[in-house]
Amino acid sequence: MTEASSAGYSRHRPCRASDVAHWDLQTEVAIVGFGAAGASAAIEAANAGAKVTLFEATSGHGGTSALSGGEIYMGGNGGTPIQRSAGFTDSSDDLYEYLRMAGGPDADAAKCRLYADHSLAHFEWLVAQGVVYKNSFIPTRVVEPFTDDCLIWSGSEEAWPFCESAKPCPRGHTPQWMGLGGGKYLMDVLAKRVADLEVDVRFDARAVALIVDASHCVVGLVIRSEGRDQFVRAMKGVILCAGGFIMNRHLVQQHAPHLARANTPIGTVDDGSGIQLGQSVGAHAIHMNEGFVTLPWYPPESLIKGIFINEQGQRFINEDCYHGRTAQMILQQRGTRFYVLADQETYGEPEFGEFAKIGIGAAGDSWQEIEKELELPAGALMATVELYNRHAANGEDPLFRKGAKWLKPLNKPPFVALDCRIDYCTYFTFTLGGLETLPSGEVLDASREPIAGLYAAGRTTSGLPRWGAGYSSGMSLADATFFGRQAGLNAAQQRV
Amino acid sequence: MTEASSAGYSRHRPCRASDVAHWDLQTEVAIVGFGAAGASAAIEAANAGAKVTLFEATSGHGGTSALSGGEIYMGGNGGTPIQRSAGFTDSSDDLYEYLRMAGGPDADAAKCRLYADHSLAHFEWLVAQGVVYKNSFIPTRVVEPFTDDCLIWSGSEEAWPFCESAKPCPRGHTPQWMGLGGGKYLMDVLAKRVADLEVDVRFDARAVALIVDASHCVVGLVIRSEGRDQFVRAMKGVILCAGGFIMNRHLVQQHAPHLARANTPIGTVDDGSGIQLGQSVGAHAIHMNEGFVTLPWYPPESLIKGIFINEQGQRFINEDCYHGRTAQMILQQRGTRFYVLADQETYGEPEFGEFAKIGIGAAGDSWQEIEKELELPAGALMATVELYNRHAANGEDPLFRKGAKWLKPLNKPPFVALDCRIDYCTYFTFTLGGLETLPSGEVLDASREPIAGLYAAGRTTSGLPRWGAGYSSGMSLADATFFGRQAGLNAAQQRV
Repeated sequence: MTEASSAGYSRHRPCRASDVAHWDLQTEVAIVGFGAAGASAAIEAANAGAKVTLFEATSGHGGTSALSGGEIYMGGNGGTPIQRSAGFTDSSDDLYEYLRMAGGPDADAAKCRLYADHSLAHFEWLVAQGVVYKNSFIPTRVVEPFTDDCLIWSGSEEAWPFCESAKPCPRGHTPQWMGLGGGKYLMDVLAKRVADLEVDVRFDARAVALIVDASHCVVGLVIRSEGRDQFVRAMKGVILCAGGFIMNRHLVQQHAPHLARANTPIGTVDDGSGIQLGQSVGAHAIHMNEGFVTLPWYPPESLIKGIFINEQGQRFINEDCYHGRTAQMILQQRGTRFYVLADQETYGEPEFGEFAKIGIGAAGDSWQEIEKELELPAGALMATVELYNRHAANGEDPLFRKGAKWLKPLNKPPFVALDCRIDYCTYFTFTLGGLETLPSGEVLDASREPIAGLYAAGRTTSGLPRWGAGYSSGMSLADATFFGRQAGLNAAQQRV
Repeated sequence: MTEASSAGYSRHRPCRASDVAHWDLQTEVAIVGFGAAGASAAIEAANAGAKVTLFEATSGHGGTSALSGGEIYMGGNGGTPIQRSAGFTDSSDDLYEYLRMAGGPDADAAKCRLYADHSLAHFEWLVAQGVVYKNSFIPTRVVEPFTDDCLIWSGSEEAWPFCESAKPCPRGHTPQWMGLGGGKYLMDVLAKRVADLEVDVRFDARAVALIVDASHCVVGLVIRSEGRDQFVRAMKGVILCAGGFIMNRHLVQQHAPHLARANTPIGTVDDGSGIQLGQSVGAHAIHMNEGFVTLPWYPPESLIKGIFINEQGQRFINEDCYHGRTAQMILQQRGTRFYVLADQETYGEPEFGEFAKIGIGAAGDSWQEIEKELELPAGALMATVELYNRHAANGEDPLFRKGAKWLKPLNKPPFVALDCRIDYCTYFTFTLGGLETLPSGEVLDASREPIAGLYAAGRTTSGLPRWGAGYSSGMSLADATFFGRQAGLNAAQQRV
């Protein structure tokens, strides 16, 4: 868990510059972690003329970003070329408003604003780095393209309450990469840029501690590599891009125990070391209980016309919201049994069914049969379906406000209940809590004072995505790449 | 928010002993905060022969403990004299199991065990300090005695799921004090003991920073008093008993934004300074999102035979659980409107109604009338009541497992809906997140190593009560007094 050292420093306690006998390496900007945030920071810092050294704990680039679909949440400014080709004009204010709502009760308005205003330019930057996007749009609701297509509805834009405050627009941009796994492609492109810019990359190099001077300024870091500790001077700053803490089960237990109910953490290193290195010099970690969680229960989108129930036979969400929002509500409930109810007209085999272990929990010619087969409280499921059907027939969902286009009475047998049990199906999760930073990437202490010489980006921070119930696909990579860039640029521009 | 200082130290950054030119005061055990935790620590440390100095930021003793009902959660060991008189034998294992469940998914088993095994001795200790308990029991469900009676059912002991794993027993012990407000009495008694033991008490003395030596040991603290900073040497240790952070709205927003929905924080100073002082030397704060919240919707206990619904007209809890557990579930939901439904046989005027601003939201001769008057989705409330009544008639609540003694069909008009809206009624709250400590009171860093010279107790820590959904009345004072004692004793026994 910890990196205790006879030298007295660790991820929990900085090394004092006055205790450094010899600097093994001198650089200007030292970056910890070669995922999307670290790569973006390195590119911008190097572009700005700084000498950059990038330390990665594993033997290759990519980090947890490479495990993703590579999708990035972008829009505003009238729309990206792909949004516009698909017939959408997206305003920066709508993007801002959506990001703010998605950020939850403590959304970072300054980050939302900056991102909304520069999201189109960020798209162009990604293209300039070599990321290729096909000019195509998938109008149906998917989790991630199985094809090489680009634009998808990747959040809750059309769902209540988001649709009331921000004009809906699809904003998930997936690189041109056939099938799932565009994140690896994205990282390969960024890594090539990092190499082209002659960034000094050190693999198998783990950050053990920060180094501070007498005035508490971060001036470098201790790297464990090739069996020994190396003391690295960073003249312009250290940028922590070391991911979140989902792989540190102890920290998850202490900060976000509900996430431990999800059986499939999405992470590589993600042991919380980035956050803890920051905390060791007074950085403030916030929203440590928040996390992303999901079960990819759609596509096919026809299932969205079905209803989700818990083990009380009650609905609990407008099913047309983002799948992660639904899963978040699931994890916050006490029970473990959850079902999607569909009828003949709405049923379709879940496209991620085998992957997610979603099977058929019950089937029958009446809802009463389903209710009995699932051993739900007598009458509970039936009351729920009856109430839902009655209003759906009028195109209304007064309980949860599912959009009219998804409303139809579930009354055509046979009926099906898809089994989405927490203790069986594949629920994915990663953490959203982390260091508080300014839009510049500067890390703040609890009094909101920047810590000199320290920057952070990606899941080491609490960024744009900081509220599980508001997460939308592409937000974490958007945050990591965009604010990674800001951190790299700002560090590079420091006067030495 | 912060205590910036030209000297470079603050609540976020310790003062270095080598920078202290002159020690203004030398003591053995320095305690921050004169609530129940600080008083208990001071008594035990002084009893153990240590020289103790107690610093309190305000002008008098009591802290937030004095705002409470003075109730302490005790039992086990065959039962306290009052439990036994009332006919209850309480086993330590049942108490342990209840505490463990109440502590939630990351309950501190070691603290639960120690407390369960020594809870009777703790009762005797309180009596020895001069706290008087009347030998009486209130069998009906109350929130706090309006009389000078002692023993009450103060948690979810008889409610599912707690009752399945721990044999129910009432464990809330309120001092003999007429009416509400026994916390002030409790603190007066403890303060008298503190005075009798000649503890050096300094009022209007605020802890500004900790002082650490070259080996990171906490050796004292900086106290701001009479307009200047005083440097206090604490030979045996510093004990942080400075409360939680509910009065620091900024921290609440960053760690527990759902608590900001409750309009009535219970706090005095509680600005998070105790937690932040600990963090400044590497202490690990955990479960910072957790808090207590409640609306005293019963007594009369007949209302427990009613049902709670949200603005979807759905039930969400077994109404016989602790009122704070219900309020916790309320705050976690999106909507703001909540109602208690009762019929003629179950209705009674809420005894805290005026205090909590619980009024009648609707009344009528049919549930349909109520549903309409509340403008709930057509049929939703009716379906809920119909399903509940059907099962209640059989003495069952298959959805939420309310106990049989509280089950009866709500079918005798007139019907009433009590209005428990979040945005109108009085929801009380305080924080439960804080520093991780050992049962000894030693403060841990994130690698679970004790920080030499530093102790903490009460709401500055994440203690026995650390999960809002499990809180029971008397748990915070139980934790503060008992683990305050451990901290005082352990600090006093340090070799200098």
